[in-house]
Amino acid sequence: MSFSRFFSDDLKLYRQSDVRELLKVTEQKKVISFGGGLPDFSMFPFKEAIEVLEESLMINFQRAMQYAPTKGISQLIDVLKDLMKIEIGLDAREYDDMIILTGSQQGLDLAARALINPGDIIIVEKPTYLAALNSFKPRKPVIYGVSQDSDGLNTEELEKLLRELYSQGKKVKFLYTIPSNHNPAGTTLPEERRKHIYELASKYDFLVFEDDPYNLIMFEGQPMKPIKSFDHEGRVIYMSTLSKILSPGLRIGWIMAEKSFVEAIELIKQVADLHTSTLSQFIAIEWIKRKIYKEFLSRSVPLYRAKRDAMLSSLEENFSNEGSWTRPKGGLFLMMYLNRKIDTKELLKFSMKRGVVFVPGESFFHDSSGKNTMRLNFSYPTEKEISKGMRLLKEAYTELISA
Amino acid sequence: MSFSRFFSDDLKLYRQSDVRELLKVTEQKKVISFGGGLPDFSMFPFKEAIEVLEESLMINFQRAMQYAPTKGISQLIDVLKDLMKIEIGLDAREYDDMIILTGSQQGLDLAARALINPGDIIIVEKPTYLAALNSFKPRKPVIYGVSQDSDGLNTEELEKLLRELYSQGKKVKFLYTIPSNHNPAGTTLPEERRKHIYELASKYDFLVFEDDPYNLIMFEGQPMKPIKSFDHEGRVIYMSTLSKILSPGLRIGWIMAEKSFVEAIELIKQVADLHTSTLSQFIAIEWIKRKIYKEFLSRSVPLYRAKRDAMLSSLEENFSNEGSWTRPKGGLFLMMYLNRKIDTKELLKFSMKRGVVFVPGESFFHDSSGKNTMRLNFSYPTEKEISKGMRLLKEAYTELISA
Repeated sequence: MSFSRFFSDDLKLYRQSDVRELLKVTEQKKVISFGGGLPDFSMFPFKEAIEVLEESLMINFQRAMQYAPTKGISQLIDVLKDLMKIEIGLDAREYDDMIILTGSQQGLDLAARALINPGDIIIVEKPTYLAALNSFKPRKPVIYGVSQDSDGLNTEELEKLLRELYSQGKKVKFLYTIPSNHNPAGTTLPEERRKHIYELASKYDFLVFEDDPYNLIMFEGQPMKPIKSFDHEGRVIYMSTLSKILSPGLRIGWIMAEKSFVEAIELIKQVADLHTSTLSQFIAIEWIKRKIYKEFLSRSVPLYRAKRDAMLSSLEENFSNEGSWTRPKGGLFLMMYLNRKIDTKELLKFSMKRGVVFVPGESFFHDSSGKNTMRLNFSYPTEKEISKGMRLLKEAYTELISA
Repeated sequence: MSFSRFFSDDLKLYRQSDVRELLKVTEQKKVISFGGGLPDFSMFPFKEAIEVLEESLMINFQRAMQYAPTKGISQLIDVLKDLMKIEIGLDAREYDDMIILTGSQQGLDLAARALINPGDIIIVEKPTYLAALNSFKPRKPVIYGVSQDSDGLNTEELEKLLRELYSQGKKVKFLYTIPSNHNPAGTTLPEERRKHIYELASKYDFLVFEDDPYNLIMFEGQPMKPIKSFDHEGRVIYMSTLSKILSPGLRIGWIMAEKSFVEAIELIKQVADLHTSTLSQFIAIEWIKRKIYKEFLSRSVPLYRAKRDAMLSSLEENFSNEGSWTRPKGGLFLMMYLNRKIDTKELLKFSMKRGVVFVPGESFFHDSSGKNTMRLNFSYPTEKEISKGMRLLKEAYTELISA
């Protein structure tokens, strides 16, 4: 029987993520991967974490096994509010509310359903997070892009675009932005630009969807004030996750936003998965209360910093005449821009033969530009792998351009 | 700032579930609840379960913390295949594949997105699971209903409806059915009817979406052969969950279906939540391998049977002249049909004042008929609460009809 004739027309709008496909390959064989965005757990405080987990389950096991409210367990919401207050100075306003998500990926999907009508204009960064693009596209928006420079989203260009759109009578629904330690670009928006974005949102009356998973992975200086902290109207949707500061396996993210938006997300989440794993939520409560994330960050931030430095010097050694790259202040990724008009998807074929993978940049651009770019992850490979992998990547590059 | 002007038009299509709202009330104060569908964990083998969990995490902790494939951890898929084979004699065919879901609720949402175009015809039981209706409706299908008698879906009526529709040139996309220990109806389809459904699906060329969470909670005789076991074409989508046989807090469900459908679900799940909690998956693997679910079932099935019996005799005592009800062979629910044309939403207001809640039947009917029905859960309240709650319900009923 041919099943495909039963599929909905919308199924065509869902795209396979190149990164996930890549992950499948890397799971199967021994390769050096600059591809995924996996945390390095070699320095995770396992002993303490397991002790805390056991203690917590002894007390809460029956509740941890049962159904939970769609919005999330209220204790988890409370400790996350405290975490945001302590770590990034972000305080909930009286019109704000919070909801727990099954990873921030779910927030992208639910927000797209709550906000986007077909034909609505949304603005993203060039490049932007590809899973965000994949979540938005099934809702059939019209997507505009704004370039990034070494300080992230170019807000002058954003202002120009907005003027143009509004002079044509076109309204924007929201701007999606990753202001700190951007995936994939490796950029961090300075405070002036954050304020500028908020001013523009107010002036041109659109929402800001602020995705902030990497703010606490900061190698130089302090985490940045989120755009949400300048929001006095309720137009910024703030989203974050425990995936990079504790564990992606827990699948815990959250949205803090204006109450009626949180209600809308709750309504759709009820259909999407009823609620987030109760067990994960109970474990997260204790790990946050007992500062396991602080302990992990205090070890992983120096580790990632050293890996970033290793990657920067390997790039300098191998690619100084062939391209440029961002110098991230934190996070897990940097982006390389090749000087030649090379399609990095081609380069990937050559590098895979040599046992090194990365994500071709094209899929991070809403308009599939950026073919000569690649996203390089430095959090997961060891320093030795980074140095060896970069040499192999250079060999693959040399082979490609001489082919 | 008024946020609502930013909402998508589709947001209107998502309905608040009466059950979830009820759950919020019952969480807040001490009431006797016939409302939810919560397992009773008083007989859960906690000690063994925690021991197994600790052993498993000692070995797998680093993997349990990390990202996982969207399709699910292959070991979990393997143990679930074994479970289905052993417990209900269901074997995967060569064209079948499986995917792990964040609870079977997610399967309803993802299948709706993969299959339904606006205007597509789907058929459901009268009554049916309300969360299924809430998942299907945002995709704007045209929903037809087929009545249930004491043996579940009336397949003669189904055949008549199909003949009518097809004579008008109308095709059906799928039939959604809960064949065993139905929620809310408390009915179980005999094998002949299961075969009849499959024959009709073949003849009229539609899919069967078989939702089977309660099959192992069987008080009399053995679990039933799923409709999927008669499927030699790949047109039955089989879905189940660990929520009733292990723990709803894990949020683990699965779909076994034709390969290309599983691929479609995987594609959408990537956008929906990337993957199901890795931690939950590792715990589930060990609990199934180590037969914790068997131990739990061997204790909870007799417990639920006794509670069903308590509810049946309380109904007999209090409502024998006022209505009729199903006598479930298993599961967690039964349905009462009142003789008088009373709106049970009104009755609920009266019963809440006396500290007893249930779910008014209306929302389980796609056409909002069944206003004189109510779903009664017997798995969660104690026998004593059942007997007391039923007396209070009768008092509320008497008050309402004399008002």
